[in-house]
Amino acid sequence: MNWKERFESRDSALCVGLDPVESRIPDGVSVAEFLDAVVEVTAEQAACYKPNIAFFERLGLAGLTLLAGLVKSIRERGIPVLIDAKRGDIASTATAYAEAYFGGPFDCDALTVNPSLGLDTVEPFRDAARARGRGVFLLLRTSNPGAAQFQDASEPILVEAIRAEPAYGAVVGATDAGAGARLRAALPDTLFLVPGFGAQGGTDLRPFFDARGRGALVNSSRGILYAGEGGTWTERKDAIREAAKVARGTIEKARRDG
Amino acid sequence: MNWKERFESRDSALCVGLDPVESRIPDGVSVAEFLDAVVEVTAEQAACYKPNIAFFERLGLAGLTLLAGLVKSIRERGIPVLIDAKRGDIASTATAYAEAYFGGPFDCDALTVNPSLGLDTVEPFRDAARARGRGVFLLLRTSNPGAAQFQDASEPILVEAIRAEPAYGAVVGATDAGAGARLRAALPDTLFLVPGFGAQGGTDLRPFFDARGRGALVNSSRGILYAGEGGTWTERKDAIREAAKVARGTIEKARRDG
Repeated sequence: MNWKERFESRDSALCVGLDPVESRIPDGVSVAEFLDAVVEVTAEQAACYKPNIAFFERLGLAGLTLLAGLVKSIRERGIPVLIDAKRGDIASTATAYAEAYFGGPFDCDALTVNPSLGLDTVEPFRDAARARGRGVFLLLRTSNPGAAQFQDASEPILVEAIRAEPAYGAVVGATDAGAGARLRAALPDTLFLVPGFGAQGGTDLRPFFDARGRGALVNSSRGILYAGEGGTWTERKDAIREAAKVARGTIEKARRDG
Repeated sequence: MNWKERFESRDSALCVGLDPVESRIPDGVSVAEFLDAVVEVTAEQAACYKPNIAFFERLGLAGLTLLAGLVKSIRERGIPVLIDAKRGDIASTATAYAEAYFGGPFDCDALTVNPSLGLDTVEPFRDAARARGRGVFLLLRTSNPGAAQFQDASEPILVEAIRAEPAYGAVVGATDAGAGARLRAALPDTLFLVPGFGAQGGTDLRPFFDARGRGALVNSSRGILYAGEGGTWTERKDAIREAAKVARGTIEKARRDG
């Protein structure tokens, strides 16, 4: 099973984003307990998990220790983990990052990478991914309002590079369904990571899937993690379980439509 | 003293890059001891230090613990620290990164940031930097062979944004003196971080400085850290001290020429 097949093996296209914000976690529950519980109650619905490392870096060394353990424990359940780190640097620095995430201390199944410094800077990630059967999601179209500002210009070159390389997936924000349709047409076989669904405003998901209704992982972070905010911890766990179920259902519907 | 003045207060334009590679550190010397010694013997020559976080992430939690302590100890000497992290993400994730580096667990004087996802994604870094008197070095022209591939297209918009914002500096690779001259003319008052001098092939430094021979921090990492490789630890410390002195001398000469 190659890396794409692992990410598509669970009969779900829901990627559960793990973005811990201390102030939104129930009183008396640690960040580690919170995330363990989230994984516990959503595992049945999740295609994969996507911890966003920024939220762990903000928690300092304790947060990064937690992340390393969390990634390991999710993978031990047989569920793939994609770390959203948007790393990107040149030459030996890119190699150092690749080694940190593929086989290193934050060992994961796939990593988001920013290719904007030039395709030569992505090669160390690609080579490390190839060697270990991992994936590299290149940022192609993010879900922020200013995404077009620089990404329009780089798109044609990136599309060509992604089409040619099985180790590459692509980040394609849910907020622009037109871009989704255009990029899906250009990249019929590429696995898309689709952020920006729900909280950020993306609604029309069909264009991001391929003709068979496959090929996309739709991320939801806050909409699941902070469901039931204000309730008791027990109520919140139920709300989180339910939110994951609803999100998966919405995504399933979009996959089948069209 | 604003953040630029802090970086230019030490009568030196040498930025000492800290890129620890375990296999190149003397036997029996820990990474922490090695970096402490590097700082000790180069402090007199250094305008600032630039740890590249990729090399610490590769070392895992021990490496990141070391980084946090190292940054603190250098700043306690009164020497500014710029963390080369090339972070960049959207919305609340950008805020999380900004909080990790400005006032957070990896508290530093300036941070390198990748603006390629759109200028809206840089605003959280800008706001955090403004609030705390810190700096944000935007990647404008990196020192890798493929730098022009996407960076040519984004340059005009970035130049305009950098010119308008005192919290922004710019990364301008030493490997392209023509780009240095063009960007210096466009940004007469901006502090440049100039990587790629020495090991990566940059030689003509004058264009990166302003008319008064100021406004640039020229980075050297491997050329200093691994000077005297193969010798005893005592010999290597002497070689590192000497390499920093020579690098600073070369840079001083370039500042005065022209």
